[in-house]
Amino acid sequence: MAARSATPPAAPADAPTEERPRRTGYRRLSVEQRREQLIAVALELFSSRPPEEVGLDDVAQAAGASRPLVYRYFAGGKQQLYEAALRSAAEELSRRFTVAGGGSPTEQLSAVLDAYFDFVAEHAAGYGALLRGGSVVETARTSAIVDEVRRVALRRTLRHLGVRTAGPRLTLLVRSWISVVEASALSWLDEGRQIPKESLRDWLVDEFVAMSAAAAVHDRQAARMLAGVLALERPDGPAAALVARLRALLPEAPANGV
Amino acid sequence: MAARSATPPAAPADAPTEERPRRTGYRRLSVEQRREQLIAVALELFSSRPPEEVGLDDVAQAAGASRPLVYRYFAGGKQQLYEAALRSAAEELSRRFTVAGGGSPTEQLSAVLDAYFDFVAEHAAGYGALLRGGSVVETARTSAIVDEVRRVALRRTLRHLGVRTAGPRLTLLVRSWISVVEASALSWLDEGRQIPKESLRDWLVDEFVAMSAAAAVHDRQAARMLAGVLALERPDGPAAALVARLRALLPEAPANGV
Repeated sequence: MAARSATPPAAPADAPTEERPRRTGYRRLSVEQRREQLIAVALELFSSRPPEEVGLDDVAQAAGASRPLVYRYFAGGKQQLYEAALRSAAEELSRRFTVAGGGSPTEQLSAVLDAYFDFVAEHAAGYGALLRGGSVVETARTSAIVDEVRRVALRRTLRHLGVRTAGPRLTLLVRSWISVVEASALSWLDEGRQIPKESLRDWLVDEFVAMSAAAAVHDRQAARMLAGVLALERPDGPAAALVARLRALLPEAPANGV
Repeated sequence: MAARSATPPAAPADAPTEERPRRTGYRRLSVEQRREQLIAVALELFSSRPPEEVGLDDVAQAAGASRPLVYRYFAGGKQQLYEAALRSAAEELSRRFTVAGGGSPTEQLSAVLDAYFDFVAEHAAGYGALLRGGSVVETARTSAIVDEVRRVALRRTLRHLGVRTAGPRLTLLVRSWISVVEASALSWLDEGRQIPKESLRDWLVDEFVAMSAAAAVHDRQAARMLAGVLALERPDGPAAALVARLRALLPEAPANGV
């Protein structure tokens, strides 16, 4: 588990009293267990409601804990709890970027996108509020957490593509594609998930290949990356299918307009 | 000029005193002129420094005004002044999305991108702080202003493409491309504007055509839009050149990897 930035609370002096079994049947929790539990409860609440609709009392109640107990662990109150929950979610999302098993580059991108959209669906309200910006709990610290996830996504994506050191244009290509993925996820949530997730995933893989092709026109490293990807693709894989369809679509401009 | 959301201040009772000529040579300004002047000065400061480094005193000093005078116009202080400056910048940017003159669709996109990157360069610090998120002055209101600019960009782009009513996938395509433009502008600023502006512009036009081609595989309306665009392109225009280069690049996967 990654290091947490907030200082861990010292073991509360009156922990035994506070933690004794309640009617709700809560077992005695260690300091670390209680901390993890509070973060997990907060994450669940922040995932399902906009941040401004989640109060510290909601977290306390859902955790079967008292408000003073929550404050003992999170002296910074709701903001600190939100950031801890966000950090926990960011770690979870970053772990999902690592795809088990092999497959062609586009199969790996597909698998990562599946994991990503599952995450977005599980944390819909919180994800939307966070990425739309202007949330009451947004600070330079929360932006830094989000940016770190983007950096992990960038590194992992480049690795899936077999690139070790990316130049500025290849970096820009992958960063651009990641922003397309985010914009698509937000649109997907905004429009009540009308487009099936699998269809969106296939579209995004195709967009990646198409964007790489345009980048390849401007940049040698992008051209080499694309060539490497296409070489590893199955003859019936999505990249090959896209190339075939693009060739059919692009050869000449039809005379009729929109 | 669009309506402002803040209520305009009543003419200050002691305006003659406050506005009388100073040693700095400021002429007497009407209420509206003074308001516009303060916004213009604030916009200049917020464009060249991160918001947290701009104080109300800086605005007052740069405007040759007193701190109480600035407060009389902007009772909400720095936050209100920031939002007024942002609104003014948003109106200016939205105006630039309208391209004078004709040209093919990709020529129009190029012209809009030129205007956009000029705007980004002129307001570099403020633009970066705003779009990176987590700024101290970011609120639901500032996010709404930014979102409105994105909606204008979406509408104008669709109009340049000859589309009247866009379905969900064509909307997603254009929203995605706009997010690529934003991500590229931020990368451009982050990396000290290493990539020439014109090169980035041409890349973004190519990305648009490529992304449209991938979208066309999934969506009839996107296919019709692309066909319409290609039909209006010059034989030596960027879309035609991209198609030719993609055809040369895509037909077969080379055996060697990255």
